[in-house]
Amino acid sequence: MQPDLDFLHLLADAAAKETLPRFRANTTVSNKLQGGFDPVTEADRAAEAAIRDLIGRHYPDHGIMGEEHGSEGLDRDYLWIIDPIDGTRAFISGLPVWGTLIGLYHRGRAVAGAMDQPFTGERFVADQSGTYYRGPDGERAIRARDCGSLAKATLFTTSPHLFSEAEGVRYRAVENRVNLFRYGCDCYAYTLVAGGHADLVVENNLKAYDIGALIAILESAGAVVSDWSGARPEQGGNIIAAGSKAVHEEALALLAA
Amino acid sequence: MQPDLDFLHLLADAAAKETLPRFRANTTVSNKLQGGFDPVTEADRAAEAAIRDLIGRHYPDHGIMGEEHGSEGLDRDYLWIIDPIDGTRAFISGLPVWGTLIGLYHRGRAVAGAMDQPFTGERFVADQSGTYYRGPDGERAIRARDCGSLAKATLFTTSPHLFSEAEGVRYRAVENRVNLFRYGCDCYAYTLVAGGHADLVVENNLKAYDIGALIAILESAGAVVSDWSGARPEQGGNIIAAGSKAVHEEALALLAA
Repeated sequence: MQPDLDFLHLLADAAAKETLPRFRANTTVSNKLQGGFDPVTEADRAAEAAIRDLIGRHYPDHGIMGEEHGSEGLDRDYLWIIDPIDGTRAFISGLPVWGTLIGLYHRGRAVAGAMDQPFTGERFVADQSGTYYRGPDGERAIRARDCGSLAKATLFTTSPHLFSEAEGVRYRAVENRVNLFRYGCDCYAYTLVAGGHADLVVENNLKAYDIGALIAILESAGAVVSDWSGARPEQGGNIIAAGSKAVHEEALALLAA
Repeated sequence: MQPDLDFLHLLADAAAKETLPRFRANTTVSNKLQGGFDPVTEADRAAEAAIRDLIGRHYPDHGIMGEEHGSEGLDRDYLWIIDPIDGTRAFISGLPVWGTLIGLYHRGRAVAGAMDQPFTGERFVADQSGTYYRGPDGERAIRARDCGSLAKATLFTTSPHLFSEAEGVRYRAVENRVNLFRYGCDCYAYTLVAGGHADLVVENNLKAYDIGALIAILESAGAVVSDWSGARPEQGGNIIAAGSKAVHEEALALLAA
């Protein structure tokens, strides 16, 4: 049986208890930071452990793929895809655009997902019935928007320096045609597309757990997500998410060229 | 007489009433957006008008320099420097890293300032007594941190494509030496330096109202802010802000070269 949205909330609550107290904790322990990125590593591991513990107790027959603690039962019908802190560099920098990503696949296909940003108090959960937001401005079902064409689109990517030279050429073909582009948002950018505030995200070299939770959030809000060849995004890779089919097709033609 | 911090809060509250309801308002009016950036223009103008109205009533002998409604009394002892929405592109994109900036100069020198981000609920106010934060994680006086050297620094800039070719060469000399760099934050980045979460912001071509409010927020938290030649930042220009004198000097040597 597929877990309901309440269970996604339960998982996100458990993760937030581990991540939020460690966010911006460097305020008073900056000296300890200098040897490495300890607070985020601790938060990452503790949050994933909390999520896995709940899944193990409620759904012992489900598989789990996590960034921090590895994979088990990858061949099970239901598979959880977990990135306890997507956007670790944002987390380290004090910037609240990181998120806890919890996705659920059924036989390889995304069927549910949650993205939680506990500092801003924004949470997105999705299953096949829709995508639901709660945040400082209330609770509601959300829909992506169709801005009509690439020329009217707002585009996000985490950072242009992450692309290879060949990828960068294709990426810039898209960037050069949009109305507005912004850098620096990790998973947060995908939720802006799902919520109808932005139109396009183009990124490369994502792991399954970087995108797994976001697929249902996007698709159940009417957005389109695929890899740069137009194939299903469940395994990660080079990813494009768009608010509408029209914008997705127009950008894809440039990326797949 | 210099206004107190309560008056800064009053101004920020008045601005938030105009900006916040229009943030992400494109969710349901995306078609209206396509001709231009109406919601942000409206929010900008209404917020600045609300701030100016309060200043005029409480401090009629003060001058005001605003982004939207022009300047008056630039030769007065006290001069308010207002950017109702710094980071309009972030605002348009649904990204809560924009802020309302309200600065106060006395005879050309920054003496107080406020930065408000009403969606996340974060507010920074400063006068000569210190810099004070309130947000989802509580209220406290804040201090910048000294990470020790550029090699350990976290650097922010809004976008590398904003630099001229000559500026870009100098900027990259800094970027190449830091531990971590991030794009895309406008005024929010300066508050991360003031709060001890990041170490360095390097930007070019700022107007006085882009930096005016942030000077007191930075300096009263122990951070250092100047133009790229090391001169006072009150008039804008190419700006560098650092968490400590050591990091400021190291970066300045590369920027001023």
